[in-house]
Formats: sequence, structure tokens, C-alpha cells
Amino acid sequence: MHQAKTPAERLTDADLAALDAHWRAANYLAVGQIYLMANPLLREPLAAEHIKPRLLGHWGTSPGLNLVHTHLNRVIKDRDLDALCVWGPGHGGPAVLANSWIEGTYGETYPDVGRDRAGMERLFKQFSFPGGVPSHVAPETPGSIHEGGELGYSLAHAYGAALDNPELLVACVIGDGEAETGPLAASWHANKFLDPAHDGAVLPILHLNGYKIANPAVLARLPEDELDALLRGYGHEPIHVTGDEPLAVHRAMAAAMDEALDTIGAVQRAAREDGATQRPRWPVIVLRTPKGWTGPREVDGQPVEGTWRAHQVPLSGVRTNPGHLRQLEAWLRSYRPDELFDESGAPRPELLRFVPEGTRRLGATPYANGGLMLRELPLPPLTEHAVPVERPGTVLHEPTKILGALLEDVMAATAERRDFRVVGPDETASNRLGALYEATDKAWDALTLPTDEHLARGGRVMEILSEHVCQGWLEGYLLTGRHGLFSSYEAFAHIVDSMVNQHIKWLRTSRRLPWRRPIASLNYLLTSHVWRQDHNGFSHQDPGFVDHVLNKSPEVVRVYLPPDTNTLLSVADHALRSRDYVNVIVAGKQPTFDWLTMDEAIAHCTRGLGVWGWAGTEDGTREPDVVLACAGDVPTQETLAAADLLRRHLPELALRVVNVVDMARLLPHEEHPHGMRESEYDALFTRDKPVIFAYHGYPWLIHRLAYRRAGHTNLHVRGYKEEGTTTTPFDMVVKNDLDRYRLVMDVIDRVPGLGVRAVAVRQAMDDARARHHAWIREHGTDLPEVAEWTWQG
Amino acid sequence: MHQAKTPAERLTDADLAALDAHWRAANYLAVGQIYLMANPLLREPLAAEHIKPRLLGHWGTSPGLNLVHTHLNRVIKDRDLDALCVWGPGHGGPAVLANSWIEGTYGETYPDVGRDRAGMERLFKQFSFPGGVPSHVAPETPGSIHEGGELGYSLAHAYGAALDNPELLVACVIGDGEAETGPLAASWHANKFLDPAHDGAVLPILHLNGYKIANPAVLARLPEDELDALLRGYGHEPIHVTGDEPLAVHRAMAAAMDEALDTIGAVQRAAREDGATQRPRWPVIVLRTPKGWTGPREVDGQPVEGTWRAHQVPLSGVRTNPGHLRQLEAWLRSYRPDELFDESGAPRPELLRFVPEGTRRLGATPYANGGLMLRELPLPPLTEHAVPVERPGTVLHEPTKILGALLEDVMAATAERRDFRVVGPDETASNRLGALYEATDKAWDALTLPTDEHLARGGRVMEILSEHVCQGWLEGYLLTGRHGLFSSYEAFAHIVDSMVNQHIKWLRTSRRLPWRRPIASLNYLLTSHVWRQDHNGFSHQDPGFVDHVLNKSPEVVRVYLPPDTNTLLSVADHALRSRDYVNVIVAGKQPTFDWLTMDEAIAHCTRGLGVWGWAGTEDGTREPDVVLACAGDVPTQETLAAADLLRRHLPELALRVVNVVDMARLLPHEEHPHGMRESEYDALFTRDKPVIFAYHGYPWLIHRLAYRRAGHTNLHVRGYKEEGTTTTPFDMVVKNDLDRYRLVMDVIDRVPGLGVRAVAVRQAMDDARARHHAWIREHGTDLPEVAEWTWQG
Repeated sequence: MHQAKTPAERLTDADLAALDAHWRAANYLAVGQIYLMANPLLREPLAAEHIKPRLLGHWGTSPGLNLVHTHLNRVIKDRDLDALCVWGPGHGGPAVLANSWIEGTYGETYPDVGRDRAGMERLFKQFSFPGGVPSHVAPETPGSIHEGGELGYSLAHAYGAALDNPELLVACVIGDGEAETGPLAASWHANKFLDPAHDGAVLPILHLNGYKIANPAVLARLPEDELDALLRGYGHEPIHVTGDEPLAVHRAMAAAMDEALDTIGAVQRAAREDGATQRPRWPVIVLRTPKGWTGPREVDGQPVEGTWRAHQVPLSGVRTNPGHLRQLEAWLRSYRPDELFDESGAPRPELLRFVPEGTRRLGATPYANGGLMLRELPLPPLTEHAVPVERPGTVLHEPTKILGALLEDVMAATAERRDFRVVGPDETASNRLGALYEATDKAWDALTLPTDEHLARGGRVMEILSEHVCQGWLEGYLLTGRHGLFSSYEAFAHIVDSMVNQHIKWLRTSRRLPWRRPIASLNYLLTSHVWRQDHNGFSHQDPGFVDHVLNKSPEVVRVYLPPDTNTLLSVADHALRSRDYVNVIVAGKQPTFDWLTMDEAIAHCTRGLGVWGWAGTEDGTREPDVVLACAGDVPTQETLAAADLLRRHLPELALRVVNVVDMARLLPHEEHPHGMRESEYDALFTRDKPVIFAYHGYPWLIHRLAYRRAGHTNLHVRGYKEEGTTTTPFDMVVKNDLDRYRLVMDVIDRVPGLGVRAVAVRQAMDDARARHHAWIREHGTDLPEVAEWTWQG
Repeated sequence: MHQAKTPAERLTDADLAALDAHWRAANYLAVGQIYLMANPLLREPLAAEHIKPRLLGHWGTSPGLNLVHTHLNRVIKDRDLDALCVWGPGHGGPAVLANSWIEGTYGETYPDVGRDRAGMERLFKQFSFPGGVPSHVAPETPGSIHEGGELGYSLAHAYGAALDNPELLVACVIGDGEAETGPLAASWHANKFLDPAHDGAVLPILHLNGYKIANPAVLARLPEDELDALLRGYGHEPIHVTGDEPLAVHRAMAAAMDEALDTIGAVQRAAREDGATQRPRWPVIVLRTPKGWTGPREVDGQPVEGTWRAHQVPLSGVRTNPGHLRQLEAWLRSYRPDELFDESGAPRPELLRFVPEGTRRLGATPYANGGLMLRELPLPPLTEHAVPVERPGTVLHEPTKILGALLEDVMAATAERRDFRVVGPDETASNRLGALYEATDKAWDALTLPTDEHLARGGRVMEILSEHVCQGWLEGYLLTGRHGLFSSYEAFAHIVDSMVNQHIKWLRTSRRLPWRRPIASLNYLLTSHVWRQDHNGFSHQDPGFVDHVLNKSPEVVRVYLPPDTNTLLSVADHALRSRDYVNVIVAGKQPTFDWLTMDEAIAHCTRGLGVWGWAGTEDGTREPDVVLACAGDVPTQETLAAADLLRRHLPELALRVVNVVDMARLLPHEEHPHGMRESEYDALFTRDKPVIFAYHGYPWLIHRLAYRRAGHTNLHVRGYKEEGTTTTPFDMVVKNDLDRYRLVMDVIDRVPGLGVRAVAVRQAMDDARARHHAWIREHGTDLPEVAEWTWQG
């Protein structure tokens, strides 16, 4: 196909020797990290006291990662590429650390771990050592955007990084274990959402070393034609590199890299210069090398190299078993460290021949420290989207629809910059954010038909029916310095529970690293929520994502439940401006009463919670007899309807209404930066009066947040208790005892001394619930008095 | 390929007409369910008052599901098959309900919804109507094992159902939306774990109707050769059925079904009779028909049939828009209901020609009501595996390893019956359940190499690096009447958070349906837990799965934290015997002190919690000054070590130690069937003494469970607070303030009047923590006094 020699074909034996030296050095340093705490250069015979007391780490994948890094270095330097690598087998921390140390970025980031003997010794000792660095690729690792924790997200992260970075090459090493996960399997189709004109390229490198922890890997055991069919079915053209003889593999890998990059270059030129619109067939490299390659072939008579036994620490008894110690020494010396490192311990120039310089080094790319590239998001003034509110509780708006118009502005304002995206599992329109399509399209690089709407290669709304891929895209996008929003059905946010765990852990750790610059927050808009699953029902009802994230690091997590349209705008504006958080916003898409003007909304959201004086009977003189608290749009409506009933039927009752937007405000100040001080909490909720709290989700969350408060024993919470089906909105709240009538009954049951009229009112409420049940069975709709209710206050 | 005519080729025009009549009837009934609450047979002109007030449901997928059902009927009857169908697009509830009604199983299950006019009217009205049935396929739906809620799990469910059911055909309709999800994408490779000899067959039917909610589906927009490559890469041979002309599609679908079943028959015969061992290439049917096929072609000038607009309710204004009403009537009448239903409203015999009988009907298969097929699991006497405990806290065992031996017995005892499986994401050996391989192998039907161990087609341990597939397999296996266990790293159980939600919702609803028989519980063994992530660190630390499940229906959820080996055996024995629960067992795999003899363990686990008199200073006369409570193996060890220190240094202190195994015991009795009554709680924990609770997970869970207790204000909980890295076990507890020294300090800080000696003891504890920090930085190991500690009591 190529007439002229490729750079790989021009490689001399000396070039190959330099590549091999680099690879051997990285392998040596990987083994050293797993085993050694002294004698790093083996200048003296290896002895038990040089060995760490606890041997931890993953050797098996390391030589493969080192090979990839070595050869990425070459093409980056040769072609002067901006490149980033996502290391899917991130448990191969020793390999990535080794390469960073060799290229010098490690020492630049951590000056006491520089390229000399002392630095090498620290590099070794700190690895998986208390007070040192984790065994996996982590935020601490220069050049990384991908935690080596849970598996499955590398490819989606890689695509997220490539979006809107047209000059970037994102290499992505996918382990054959990770390839079995669902998220990874789904991510292959992300190439149908990549625009070769506006986006960078992703080069997947499927590393088949054959084994997982204790089992063969499925893809490694497919016949080659079946694997090729699979990869072609994913839209890729496979390039195979197979072997266990280093020089032959170096030659093949160099050729494969050149072929892949030539293809990528041709694809990009075709799209960018020739206006080609057909979806390209992107290359994928399939690298088959033995697990634990160059490690011990056998240990204690069992085969190790090339088997699952090479997964972690192949020689485990080194401190006590002299045979193991000798074997380790022979293994280390097989890399010929004296040829690799000079007297001072620095890598010899020869092995640095193909290492790029400056920010071209994979450990120094600013793309992996996204905060360096981040720009302020151009947000419109909130007044432009605020809905007018003359009287609370009389006009309805669809909150997410209004938010959609704000997002449209952001999308339009970033049309040139291209640093804002909205992702979602085919729900953007369903979640009523359709205004976005006035400013952009949905990314789509597969076949389009005449009936299709708003599909285009360059679109910045991303929709695939995989929450995992959506989350992975957005994480990759944010970690490389851009902005975005994930909109999802509330119940199905749980699909990414474990992914958000990993991202929160990443952010928590990054925030403690001064060299990591703050990135834009990961913003969730959870809508189509538990109370309004009209088309779906019980299987779609779960408000527990909030509980899930509130278990995690408080410095990272923020949860907002705006009760109406203007508060949603205020909260979203704040979230989109924020840095290094995970913001969870739960808001409805169905028509919802407006309660606050924009100014009131901003003030309320800034406080995070507050008394709605107009809703209670506050006159500045009386302490309340009872506090009606609420969080969430539907609970707020029911609370206000209950307040309305109480004000009419029991006017002598001193009533306070408190609305909570920012859930963390309920926590003690010592436990969350947003947490209220004791005095502040007591002033709002009282220390001794009954508090009837209508909450959007599982009621015990409120207790978990407020259990330290003086007034906690008087706190009575209503929320979702797993009662639901396909039914009406009001029936849903009745089923869960969150309805206005029940809230009034709760007040009457808990405020002492209300007298005989209260008994009658309570009975009337009970009657209203019975009337509801009879009506709905007959008509299938809500009681007219409920459907037509507005705030009378 | 086939010489003789297949049954499909022999189909006469009359046969095709009968199939078409069946399909039209099902389509009619599906539309009727979405729209009508009266006039079910259109015996009078359609009027607004016949229309439901709220139009809810999913039309788009229904005609395709009806087509599949019609043609499955034919081959089931023709070949006398035992078959089950998993309806991936389970939101097409109207279709599955329609078919169940036609075949009579609906009326047999719900006698007031029989095959007559009144029954049809009830079928229509109840759908998505308050008090009626949900819009999705659900437990209420006869013949279903798969909730039409969250998408992605159909294929894994289908494989789970087929395992160890050699005579069963499991058809599985996969929507093209669902096909984009990660779990579904990963499930395709489940065919490498299916044994054609011992297992039944799975026939995937990929239904490409082209659209999701608002977008084209990725797989529907692949060129056919690319899609074929993908499916061949998955190990399948595609059979295409494409069209929108009903009779042509009927003919093609009948032929495709025959071809698929012939291939399946040949594969099974080869494996069972000829001993073929090569992995077969299983068929997959690719069905391309328009979304909303036979529905309105256009509505208000917009194309609907064959577009995403057909997804839910194509005509939305029927009650108010006379044009829509007329269009609906024409649509309904296009199925010619008078030809389909007789005077009484019953389906005419002609359209029942290909409907199977009795339990061959898809709505009546006992496989979909697994409790009917369930047998008691043969569990060995616990005494056979109990570890001897002469003195508590002096001998260590690896709890999961001993459990492995018990599971080995179960595996061996079910060797013939084949109704027990263990699933896990490549962690069975890592989780130290390796004894299982004495009794069975790991299921594997891909290539094997000489170095492989314990891989075999017929193995009943299932390992794939996808928690989603593991969970899906096990759910499918349990729902069809068998037993099993899922072992996973604790942190990564969150990967299946949303799947377990759906399963819990399924069980909660099933339990309320008298005709659904109890099935075996879904048992999780979560190990490699937060405190012992020696090789991994922060990214692998998350004890929140317990919090997650405890949000769900209390009648279903059970959580156990056995503190040692014998308690783990007792709890596992109980879980494996139980029905209709989700049991979560968290237990360590690392050497753990034995505290209780087997008899004590059984008694303790039966109570769920209790005082460990020998550990405190109980003498039957004194009230305790302080209660040390603990739950989980590591917290129990730290608590006992703290008790040891307190007994030595402050012997005058009256100390009680309470260990909790069954977490729900802490809940009020009104909130969970296991919850303790107030008197019982107070007797254990006191109403007024400090309780220092060392808990395995997030500390606030204990508060959330116990906030109603009188003594709650005195409850002080230590647990995991997101502090961790790759470090030593003891450093982990120190980092999270759960260590013995801190617990002693907590006691001293909270028990009043301890005097000056306590001040010195407190200082000594603080010094010990400082000593730990210094030691570990230097040595990388735990203090000898910690590493060598045993219970002295």
C-alpha cells in the first residue's frame, strides 16, 4: 500500500537496540518497584534486606504496557504528535511510573524522585508502601487521566478525551480482562460518534496477554478470524502484532504504529481537506505478547511467564526463600541494568533516543492535567431565562425545559470553542432539553436517513443508550479540561454508581495534589424522577443515587433539589461554574409550580435552604408550633398544599415552612463544608418543635444527615418507601404517605394541644384520602381538587 | 443445505393466514390496551368516552414482539418444545399481555380477565391504569422472568435460564436500543460458557426496528456486512428477516425460525450423541421491521410508522382531537377485529391454530415460575466444616476458604441434579473459594491450552470479568428455579447496583402474587473488602453496597456481617436455604480470628446479634458503664483488642461487648421483620450508656438504622470514612479512626468519672498511634504488638 519506506521500515539495528534498551529499562524499573527498597542498581549482590516486607503489585501486564509506551514515544517524537495514553490495565502502575521516571516527568513532578540513584531508590520504595504511592495508575501518576481501579472505562475515557481536540492522538490500551466488561464492550461503538474533522483520534491497542487473574481471557481465545470479524463489526481495521521474541516484536510494533498513524492521518485529511463524509474504518492494534513477558519462566516447578500465575507477584517468597531471591536477582540482571543506567543512576542517553521532549512526553501532556487547559464557561445572565413569578404557586413551568434554553445559550456561545457537551442515554428530548438542538446537533457518524432530525458529525449532544459510555465520555472530556452535563432518568443513574465512585475518589485525591489543576465539575441532571414515572412505573422508581453519592468524600459531593424552575436555573448556573465537584441536581421535567422569583431563587439557593415566610404564618413574634420542611419539587408542592390546608383549617397554628435545596446543609458543619452550624440549624428548625419533613427520596437519608441535631428526636420524615406502579402523580404520593392530607395529619398527630377542631380536620384529611382512592379506581385520574389546586396564600 | 422441505416451506396460504390473524389479533389487543377502556370489540363507533384519560404505554416495539410470539408459538407446537422467551424490550408490555390473553394463560392466572368481551375490556382498562397492571412486562405478567424496566439484561437472563436445562429453548428478543448497553454488549460472549450437552439453547432475536426513544439505534445503522461481522465475531451465525409486507415477513420469519432450530438441534445432537467438542456457531435471528409497524403512517403531517415517533403513544390527542380519534378507529379496524374475535369476544379458532397447549404455552411454562421447579439444596451438616475453637481470638482461619469447602460439598451433592452454580468476575480463587474446583470446573467452551486448569464445558463455576453478566446469569438461573451464589470484591458489587434494584423490585412484587412460587434467594458473598485491599488500595475500597440494598424493600433484603469463620458458615447455610431474599454477606478472605464455636455461632447468628459475655466484664450484677459494639470481621477484632486493653488498664470499668451479624436487627421492628423491639434493643445497648460502635462500612449507616432508639444520642460510630490507599491492614483502621487505640480513647472520652488513671491510659493510646506512624514509615509493616496480638481474656 505504501510505496515509500515508512519510518518503521527505516529503523536500523541501532534504533531497535535503543527501543529495546528503553523497554528493558522500564521493565527493570517495574520489577524494582514491586520488590526492592534498597540496592536499586544492583551494585551489590541482592540480599533479603533489600526486599520490601510486603510484596504488592501487578507484574503481568507491565511488560506489555512498557512496550506500548516505548513505541508510542517513538511515533510521538517522529511525528511531533500531541498524544495522551489511557492505560486500561491501570493496575500496571509500575510500568507507567517507570516510563514517567525515565522520561523525567516524574522527577519534575516529584523532585525527590529524580533520575539518579537516590531517586530510583525512592521510586522503588514508595511503590505500594505505606505513605508512598498506590499500586495502580492514580491521580498521583503524571500523565494519567484514568484510575487503575475498577475496569471497563478506558475506551470511553479515551473517546471523551479525543472529542473536540482535533490535534490530539489518544492511545488506549485495553486489557483482555477489561475487554470482557460491559462498559468496555459498549464503548467500541463510540467510533460512530467521533467526528474526524472536529475530534481527535483514538487508537485502541487491544492487549491480549491471554489471562485475567486466574482465567484465560475470552478475546484471547477466539480464533483470529473470529476476533477480526468482531473488530471489523465494531468498525475497526485490525493490525496484529504477535510474538515473544523482543526484537521481532519491536519491529512489528513499530510497523503497526506507523500503519495505524498513517491511516489515522489519511482519515483526518480526507475529512478535513477533502470533505469526506463516509464513516471511516479506524485502525486497532491487536498486541499478543505473553503475560509477565521476560519474567520468571517457572517458579517452584510451575509455569509462570505466559500464564495467569504472572498476574501479580511471580516470586512471593523472596525474603525467606533463597532460591526465590536468586531467581529474582537473575531476573533483574537479565535486563542488564549496567547498560541502562549510568554511574549516577540516570538513564543512559541511548535509551532516551526515542523519548519525546517537553510537553510531548506522555507524562507531561497538559491534556492529562485538564485544569491547565480549562476556560471559564460563557454562561448567560440568569435573568435572560428566568420565568416571571408574580404570585407563588399559581403558574406552572417545566423546569428542565427552561434549563434547556439556558443550555442552548451555552452551546451557542461555545460553538467555536467547542468545549461544552451534553451527554445522555437517548433522553435529552425526553428530559425536555430539546432546545439544545437549536444550537447544535446530536453527534452521529453512522448512516442517516431522510426522516432523521438533528443528527450531525459535529454535534455536541451525545446520545447512546449506555449510561456507562455517557459517563465515560463525560469524565474523559472533563479530565482533559472541558465542561459538560449528564442528563439521565433518576433511577438509572445507579447504573453508573461504581463509575462515579471512581471519579469522586479521583477528584478527592487530585484536590490534594498541588500540581493537579482544578477541572470542571461533573454535573448530573437527574430528571424523569421517582414521582413522575407516568409511562413506566415501579421499575423506574429509585431516588437512591443521592444516598449513594452522599456516602463519598464531602469535599467533592454536592446535591441539589431545586423546587421550581428559577431555583433549577440558579443551581445549574452554580454547578456549571464550579470546579472539582460532583454536582447532583434532581429536578422534574413535568409542569411544576413556580414559587420564587429569580432574585429570590438566587438568594435561596445561595443559602441552600431557608424559611419561606410567605408560606407559613411567620410574623416575627411567634415561635412556630410546627415546622414543615421540604426538599424536592413534588414534596415542596405537597408541603405547600398542606400549609394551605392548615392555614385555612387551623389558622391559630403557628406554622413555618422551610425549603431545602442543598442537601449537605443539613449535615453538621464539621462533616461537610456546606454543613450548618448548630445555632443556624436550631434557628431554622427549632430545638424542640415537631418538624414534618417531606423529602424527595428515601426518608432515612434526612435522619442520616440530621441525626446529630438537637431537634432530631422531633423530626418526622416522609419520602419514598418503595411503593409504586404505573399510576397518577398524586396516587404516587398517597401510596408513599407523602401527600398533603397525610402531612396535615402528621402535623395534627404531633403538635400537642390542638383541640377538638383538629380532630375534625384530621378526619377530613382521612376522608380526602379515601375519596382519592375511590375516584382514581373509577376515573384513573386525580381528584379535581388536587388537579386544580393552586397556592392561595 | 436442507434437502427435505422444512416445516416453514410446507406452510400453506391458509397457514400463513392463520399466523397473520394471530399477529393481527395481538396487535389489536396491544393498541386496545394503550387506548381503550370500553367498547373493546368496536361493536359501536369509537367515541371519546371509550378512551382512557391518560394514554400510557409503548406501541413502537409491540408489533415486532407480537410477530416473534406468533412464530415462536408455531415452532413450539410444531416441534413440541419446552420454551421460554425473554422479552428484552419489556416496555412492550401490551404485546406480551396480548399474547398471554390470546393463548388463555392470562385468564387462567387472572380469571376475571378471560377470553371474552368482559375480559378483554378488563385487559384493556387495567393496563397502565391506577390499580391495574404496569405498562412493562413485570412479575404480574404470566410467562415472564424479566422485568421490562432497566435495559441491558435480557441476554444474560436468557443464558442463566438455559444453563442446566438441556431440553429448554430460551428465545431472547433484544431491542436495538438495549443492544447499545454495556451489559448486553458483554452478554453476547456468554455463548463461550454454554455447554451444548448439559445446557439448553439460547436463540437471540435481535430486533432492529431502527430507533430508540428519539434516536436511531447504532446497530440498525450498520451496513449489513458490518453487522454480520459483529455477530460472527460474537460467535453467532446470522439469519436475516427483513421487511414490512406482513405475509412476506411471516414466510421469512417462519423459515428463519426453522433454520435456527434445525441448527440448534444439530449442534445439540453433535454434542450429546457424537461427542463433538468444538464450540458451535449458534444462530441469531436479525429481524428488521418498522418501529410501530401497522400503526399510523403519519400523524399531523409527521411520519410516525417506521420512526422514533412511534415509540410510545403515536396518537396523543384522541380524547380531544376528533381527527386523532378517527385515525385511531381506522387503525384499530385495520386489524379487522370481527374476523379475529367471535361474538363472545373470544379469539376465533383459526388464529389459535398454531398456539401450543398446556405448559407449552409461553405464558404457562413452569420455567418462568421457577419456584414450581425448585428443590431443596442438599447442604452438609455445619459440623462437617466447623473449625474447632478452644479459646476465642487465638487461632486464625480464612473464612471464605472454609466456606469454599462447604460449597464444594454442595457442588458435589448437586453433580447429578445440576441446580447449583457459583458466579464471579474472575475472583473465585482470589476470594479463596478454590475448593470448589475439587467438585466441579469453570464453565468454558472456548479454546483451552495445556497450562489451563479447571476449565471444562460442564463446569458450574462461572467466571467472566463482567459483574453484569455474572448477575444476569445468576438471576436467570434463580428465576428458573435453581440455586446459586455470587462472589465479588466488595467495592465492585456497586457495578450491579441498578441490577439488584430491579431484582429486589421483582421479588417484592412476586411475593405479593400468590401464583408466583418462592424462588431461591440471590446470595452475595462480598469479600476482598474495604479493610483488606492490600494489593489495590483506595480505588478498591467501598463498603456502600450494604447501604444501597438497605434502601430497598425490607421484606426482601438481608445483610449479614459474620465476624469469623463459623459465623460465616452459619450465615451462608441460612442464606442458601432461604427463599425470595437478597442476602448480602460481607466476609473476609484473609486470616481472621475465630471467636465462636460452631454451636455458639449458630446461636449467635440465629439471634442476629448478642452480648459476648466472655469479652466484657459481665458478671450478671452490674450494668455496663459502656457498650463496645461491633459489626464486621476487622471491626470485631479491633473491638476485642480494645476490650483487652480496657480490661487490663481500667479493670474497674464495667464493659459490655455486643457483636452484630444481622444488620437489620438494629432497625425498629415496625420497619423490618428482623428489627428488634424497643425493649430488646434497650436491654442490649442500654438506654443511657455510651455505645462505641465499630462498624465495617460507612458509620452513618448505623445511625440511619438506630436513630429511633432511646439510646441513640449516646451512640458513637466508627467506620470507613473514605480514607485509604495501598497500605497495611492496621494502617487502614488507623487512617479511619477504627483502631483499637482510638476505640479505647473513645471510651475514655465518653465514660464520665474515670479518674486520673484513665488520662494516662488515653495518653498511652495516643502514643501507640504515634508509634504506629513512625514504625510503618520506616518498616512498611504493622507494629509487632499489633501483628502478634491475640485475645488474652
